[in-house]
Amino acid sequence: MTVKKNLEVCFSPALLHLYDTKGKVVVIIDIFRATSTITAALANGAEKVVPVASVEECIALGASTPNSITAGERNGQVAPGLQYGNSPLEYPEEFISGKILNLTTTNGTRLLHQVEDADTIIIGSFLNLSAVCDFLIAQDKDVLLGCASWKDRPNMEDNLFAGAVVRKVQSYFDIKCDSAMIAGSMYDDALRRPDLLSYLKVGSHYERLANFGLLKDLEYCTQVDIHPVVPILKNNALVLEKVTTI
Amino acid sequence: MTVKKNLEVCFSPALLHLYDTKGKVVVIIDIFRATSTITAALANGAEKVVPVASVEECIALGASTPNSITAGERNGQVAPGLQYGNSPLEYPEEFISGKILNLTTTNGTRLLHQVEDADTIIIGSFLNLSAVCDFLIAQDKDVLLGCASWKDRPNMEDNLFAGAVVRKVQSYFDIKCDSAMIAGSMYDDALRRPDLLSYLKVGSHYERLANFGLLKDLEYCTQVDIHPVVPILKNNALVLEKVTTI
Repeated sequence: MTVKKNLEVCFSPALLHLYDTKGKVVVIIDIFRATSTITAALANGAEKVVPVASVEECIALGASTPNSITAGERNGQVAPGLQYGNSPLEYPEEFISGKILNLTTTNGTRLLHQVEDADTIIIGSFLNLSAVCDFLIAQDKDVLLGCASWKDRPNMEDNLFAGAVVRKVQSYFDIKCDSAMIAGSMYDDALRRPDLLSYLKVGSHYERLANFGLLKDLEYCTQVDIHPVVPILKNNALVLEKVTTI
Repeated sequence: MTVKKNLEVCFSPALLHLYDTKGKVVVIIDIFRATSTITAALANGAEKVVPVASVEECIALGASTPNSITAGERNGQVAPGLQYGNSPLEYPEEFISGKILNLTTTNGTRLLHQVEDADTIIIGSFLNLSAVCDFLIAQDKDVLLGCASWKDRPNMEDNLFAGAVVRKVQSYFDIKCDSAMIAGSMYDDALRRPDLLSYLKVGSHYERLANFGLLKDLEYCTQVDIHPVVPILKNNALVLEKVTTI
């Protein structure tokens, strides 16, 4: 009998020290909007996405890398000095195909740099939910689902996505993690609403982005499985992994 | 028009620095089992419960305080050197009435000492759920529901209780806190199960305590409103507050 691998969920980067990431597959989750944007940009043909911690570093990298653009946000809005924002709708195929995207965001890219000792780091969003689940099942390694949260406070949308993954892969993993159970329970509750976005309307992030006129982004980011790809970190950049079908 | 007060939920002591506790009513939540035990002991006539950080301090206090007993646990079991454990069933009226209980636990009493700048600190458990909610509504102050968690990892039962409070008081408060929404969603999901305990069976704490033969404690701690009292911190001890009915 094969022993099942473990799966855990971490609600906030401020709790990451409680989890061991070494040797694990870590899924970075920042639904509104970093990991949705990364998924969309790569699915639409971006050569790679380079996650960058600071705005300054992003500008410098953009200047030194041919055929690349700078993008990112601070506090939900385009950061001064960068060319583009953190909206997946800014990166349709006709614009982003073949380009390198240097990206810095409030929460998502920071978390990515916190888990560097992981075996594998991939990017999760509702846009590529099933592709991520298939990948996790095929890897047969311990998994940590890492929610980027909002300035270290747990948020609805990242936890909800973690819950969706938990429910889809739970028969393949040994899950002894209350955060995973909490997330799964949220997802069960969300499935009783008309759609994911209406479930997320009571979330603080929904209000924040809707106030910025970004309702279309929220609608885009809650579509399920429109991009069957797995962004994976290789040589400090996110590129597309060929999806392994089980 | 009166402006509603805020209510927030903190899932773990490791996230407490993200919340302001000054001037607020803080509800300490450690369902399995510290806050259930405190509620039961006071409801059954204990003169007061003195929360103590260390086992050593607890032993010293027990020796110097007439008519008092020492109790507590580390890692879910009676701590060596203490007279009693952290089970609410150890404190029936015929034993505890009139006595002082010096108590130290893994998570609950620690959290209590972390929020000392709060305006008011009370104890929440399913045993006194409605009494706690009535008290919060009557106070008309900002509220923080503080989950003791398990060694800083969010746990199911504390978050579930927070969700029960959120659902019962939400029309009286302005709630802009994703953790509160997550907890409320869990509670909505739990209400679809036969009872709270069956919902909590997938939690790590359930398994841990059941393995210690403490299933009766789990059953006791998930009873709702059997003790309509509000334990409140006054002069470094928990005593009964007269419940204010609205």
